[in-house]
Amino acid sequence: MSLLETINSPQDLKRLNLFELTTLAEEIREKIIEVVSKRGGHLAPSLGVVELTLALHYVFDTPRDKIIWDVGHQCYAHKLITERRRQFDSLRTYGGLSGFPKRKESSYDVFDTGHASTSLSAALGIAIARDFAGEDFKVIAVIGDGAMTGGISFEGLNNIGQTKRNLLVILNDNKMAISKRVGALGQYLTKITTTPIYTHFEKDVWELLGRLPSDLGGKARILARRVREGIKNLLVPGMTFEELGFHYEGPVDGHNLQALIEILERLKNLKGPILLHILTVKGKGYKFAEADASKFHGVSPFDPETGDSRTQKGIPSYTEVFGKTLVKFAEEDKRIVAITAAMPEGTGLNYFAEEIPERFFDVGIAEQHAVTFAAGLATQGMKPVVAIYSTFLQRAFDQIIHDVALMNLPVVFALDRGGLVGEDGPTHHGAFDLSYLRQIPNLVVMAPKDELELVQMLKTALDYSQGPIAFRYPRGSGIGIPIKENQPNIKIGKGEILSKKGDDALILSIGAMVHPSLKAAKILQTKKIKPTVINARFAKPLDEALLKKLTRRIKKIVTIEENVLSGGFGSAVMEFFEREGIRDIQILRVGLPDHFIEHGSRDLLLEKFGLTPERIAEKVEKFVKESLTAVR
Amino acid sequence: MSLLETINSPQDLKRLNLFELTTLAEEIREKIIEVVSKRGGHLAPSLGVVELTLALHYVFDTPRDKIIWDVGHQCYAHKLITERRRQFDSLRTYGGLSGFPKRKESSYDVFDTGHASTSLSAALGIAIARDFAGEDFKVIAVIGDGAMTGGISFEGLNNIGQTKRNLLVILNDNKMAISKRVGALGQYLTKITTTPIYTHFEKDVWELLGRLPSDLGGKARILARRVREGIKNLLVPGMTFEELGFHYEGPVDGHNLQALIEILERLKNLKGPILLHILTVKGKGYKFAEADASKFHGVSPFDPETGDSRTQKGIPSYTEVFGKTLVKFAEEDKRIVAITAAMPEGTGLNYFAEEIPERFFDVGIAEQHAVTFAAGLATQGMKPVVAIYSTFLQRAFDQIIHDVALMNLPVVFALDRGGLVGEDGPTHHGAFDLSYLRQIPNLVVMAPKDELELVQMLKTALDYSQGPIAFRYPRGSGIGIPIKENQPNIKIGKGEILSKKGDDALILSIGAMVHPSLKAAKILQTKKIKPTVINARFAKPLDEALLKKLTRRIKKIVTIEENVLSGGFGSAVMEFFEREGIRDIQILRVGLPDHFIEHGSRDLLLEKFGLTPERIAEKVEKFVKESLTAVR
Repeated sequence: MSLLETINSPQDLKRLNLFELTTLAEEIREKIIEVVSKRGGHLAPSLGVVELTLALHYVFDTPRDKIIWDVGHQCYAHKLITERRRQFDSLRTYGGLSGFPKRKESSYDVFDTGHASTSLSAALGIAIARDFAGEDFKVIAVIGDGAMTGGISFEGLNNIGQTKRNLLVILNDNKMAISKRVGALGQYLTKITTTPIYTHFEKDVWELLGRLPSDLGGKARILARRVREGIKNLLVPGMTFEELGFHYEGPVDGHNLQALIEILERLKNLKGPILLHILTVKGKGYKFAEADASKFHGVSPFDPETGDSRTQKGIPSYTEVFGKTLVKFAEEDKRIVAITAAMPEGTGLNYFAEEIPERFFDVGIAEQHAVTFAAGLATQGMKPVVAIYSTFLQRAFDQIIHDVALMNLPVVFALDRGGLVGEDGPTHHGAFDLSYLRQIPNLVVMAPKDELELVQMLKTALDYSQGPIAFRYPRGSGIGIPIKENQPNIKIGKGEILSKKGDDALILSIGAMVHPSLKAAKILQTKKIKPTVINARFAKPLDEALLKKLTRRIKKIVTIEENVLSGGFGSAVMEFFEREGIRDIQILRVGLPDHFIEHGSRDLLLEKFGLTPERIAEKVEKFVKESLTAVR
Repeated sequence: MSLLETINSPQDLKRLNLFELTTLAEEIREKIIEVVSKRGGHLAPSLGVVELTLALHYVFDTPRDKIIWDVGHQCYAHKLITERRRQFDSLRTYGGLSGFPKRKESSYDVFDTGHASTSLSAALGIAIARDFAGEDFKVIAVIGDGAMTGGISFEGLNNIGQTKRNLLVILNDNKMAISKRVGALGQYLTKITTTPIYTHFEKDVWELLGRLPSDLGGKARILARRVREGIKNLLVPGMTFEELGFHYEGPVDGHNLQALIEILERLKNLKGPILLHILTVKGKGYKFAEADASKFHGVSPFDPETGDSRTQKGIPSYTEVFGKTLVKFAEEDKRIVAITAAMPEGTGLNYFAEEIPERFFDVGIAEQHAVTFAAGLATQGMKPVVAIYSTFLQRAFDQIIHDVALMNLPVVFALDRGGLVGEDGPTHHGAFDLSYLRQIPNLVVMAPKDELELVQMLKTALDYSQGPIAFRYPRGSGIGIPIKENQPNIKIGKGEILSKKGDDALILSIGAMVHPSLKAAKILQTKKIKPTVINARFAKPLDEALLKKLTRRIKKIVTIEENVLSGGFGSAVMEFFEREGIRDIQILRVGLPDHFIEHGSRDLLLEKFGLTPERIAEKVEKFVKESLTAVR
């Protein structure tokens, strides 16, 4: 029996000795690699914090003491030792364990995460609530150096430094965000960690000062005191954190269990905000992940022996098509600039970074800045392309309104992961973008039906100079349409009729739902129902002329979108009918429901929410067969 | 003729001597006080930067060189000397000068602002675009110490510190945000500025070190070098900024024109990112504003002789009712905590701060942190009330989704300034909240018809423990309903029938539009049209039972909201009808259009956008008289 099999809860850790803990760390790594190689997941982040996880649960009294995992993608070891080992094989599968902390899953999961940089703010709230309740549990936030670049982290630090509650921040410094870290803060951390630690020199310094002549005048005495203070700055590598009100400790080797346990024991009962700086290796203990931590940040199933992906390298992903095509256009137009918030690989901008590094900007996990920075560029005639996942762009909602749309600046927004993302679950689904973007004045909002149309929309967006323009596309492979050169641009606000079989129903579909809708139309034909299918392309502006024309003839309208129904594309269509006083039609909207959607494969979720060809066909059939009178 | 009358553009400054510039500063202050006392506006911020404005335009070559004013509320002196003196009397009036920088208004206005903390990001974008274009103009961002606490500022600093472009940041340190500044960064700035400046001691330090015995060993020599570095930290008060990649200069007296001009001349041609720290007094030169800069941050018209507001102290504002009532409830329930993002007075939480300071948290200009901090508190059973203006809560859109709604935490959101705010214009209108909140799963969204219902909704929200709940209310005075004690709670999702005159139309109104709708109903009765008027109260969940019941009888439905029509309350109603298959009705939605709305008095804007009783009545009349067949 392995050691891991004897660990059901953190209580079981406490009887292990250091040697056993070290063995356990190895077993945990093996288990994580085994399961992630089958299920996919965030491998490198979790491998990097195995020792930290053990040390935390060993030293602290969880779940009474609260650990908040920033981003949460590093929680696999935590889940394995907190009463979830037996379910661990179900990781990221529908109905199984989530890949992120989930309060509903376990009392050891204190705060749900998924987006970066929230842990400090949450930890402060928890610490203050604790103090009001007169309790004394410990609050620990674990945050990476990458997540530390997010603005809300700084807002949290700033507030923690002032309120002075007892709270431990562990800065997990692996010199990475999702990719290579960027930013001045990172450079500062590098400086701290590459400068020798002076602690053991401290005595010598005082000796040195002791040799100063004793006949110094008053001014010089004051100066000498000040010199001592200056030396303190020198001796404390984390002076900047100290200036912000933290007691800084570190840096400590985050893979040295003994050192971690010792320092956590020492810090456990200190008062006030403490920042412990630990150094870890992302992907630690798995050679392929150590060698390429970006690639192994989040992975599809792979062969653990070789590190090779098990995914068939077949149809290119939307991400790849976007990234490669943008390079091509940017080679022809020097005004094009590419901006990512710490995700060059995730967004496909890695190709741009390689080919045109001087016009590529990775601003760190900083979506707000990414957007306003783009706005600044656009005021001077550049063509910034901001590529951010749909769910993460929510962070910059105000900046899109206030810094881009209000000035009507021509910024291009490329939203990858629009719609359901699958296994990463509710924090990562791009379920809201059509709704939150569509309400913003001046903004054009598109979604391509396939990878070829993505290329066309990208070009259309780059050539559109009247204002901001966004397009969203799904996670995963395209549908296999070859990318042809020199495609015509799409006229703003123009949809296309794809299938004109008859007037029984008008299926208005957008983005990734267009092809399933075409398949649904074929199913419907076998049932003698003859629909017309439109690729709407635009959630804003709608193709009003086409809608007016077709609804003269067709009175049953069905909208299909992979977006929440609240305020989404279908609502835009209803708003148009209301505005125009078109009332002799009936409408049915198909899309995502008004609740957060769990994790599970995208296909399974699409089936569950009725967005497959079969389910769409069923709904349209029922709708067409209903009588025209109201159903009461 | 005053000196000011001779200044049409910054070119005219260049021929003035220091004495004349000082006189001009006085005249500018007089002019600003004169106009703001009539028009209302952001008095104290603008008075604080008169000398800075003159020095910048004197030293730099504007509009070729670019000044970006963070927040922008301090731009009055800037507007006065940049070709807009003659229009200055029209400040903040409809069709007149905006109270904020506006690119459409002048080439001297480089970037539109209104929300805080965007200037660094915009400046970096502009600087990088300049470098691509091979130009050499200067880029200057002016940002307050308050705005510096916003997370996007830190994201910007972090990126600027790395990219190393030529760019000047002027940190305008007045020890204030809108109110007293908060946060560890502020404490750090205080430390910098209260520690004597050592520059002139520098020589003495080297002398002191020179006295060290020359027979120091190797280790000690290394140490001595390190001591010198430590002393550098000591001599440079802005070491934290230096660590983030800036060259720090200051602090400098921001009202000393000579000092400002000298240092700006010196810094003008330095390379890389520079941070100039200046100290100013908010409200400088107007004794009432200096004495109470919070009160004079943004003011209604006032008597310049006494500083007293000219607004009749009559009906209490929604803000005041909210603030005072919350104190009352919090005295009875120790779990209630109040959170503001730097706006205790603006949100009415100043009463809470006075009465229950231990449960009051001003987190700085940090809306994202405010929301996630509240989420942390709520996980431990506290009842956080986050009071943020509608437009500023846009900053925390992702945090509401990801950190509150996803975990279904009972956080209360109080959105002041929902709807049109009037003179502050497009950056400040709360035009989007019903749309952006309504699409979020688990969130209840309310709007009270008057101040008494605000009190009821606040209590309802505090007693609602199943999840997050938000209510939005307008800027300005209530409608004069007395506040009675012990009002019953409102049932979640229940509207009320206010006027039941007949079945000609069903007017569904929400929030501040309910009373105008009642008046509209009276006008309609004089025209023999008999409507039923509903106070919807909830944008989510809707009162579905009531809607179902009434639409059995009434077939013409009109929704009225002070919110954009895209995705707003009216769309929610249409979505309900679609979901339920209720198709034998007709709907007309009345609300704000799909464009940014200019500044001007709220009454004037409501009239313009058809939200007065008369205009509502006209629209309903026309709608009722239309035939039931579609208008094509």
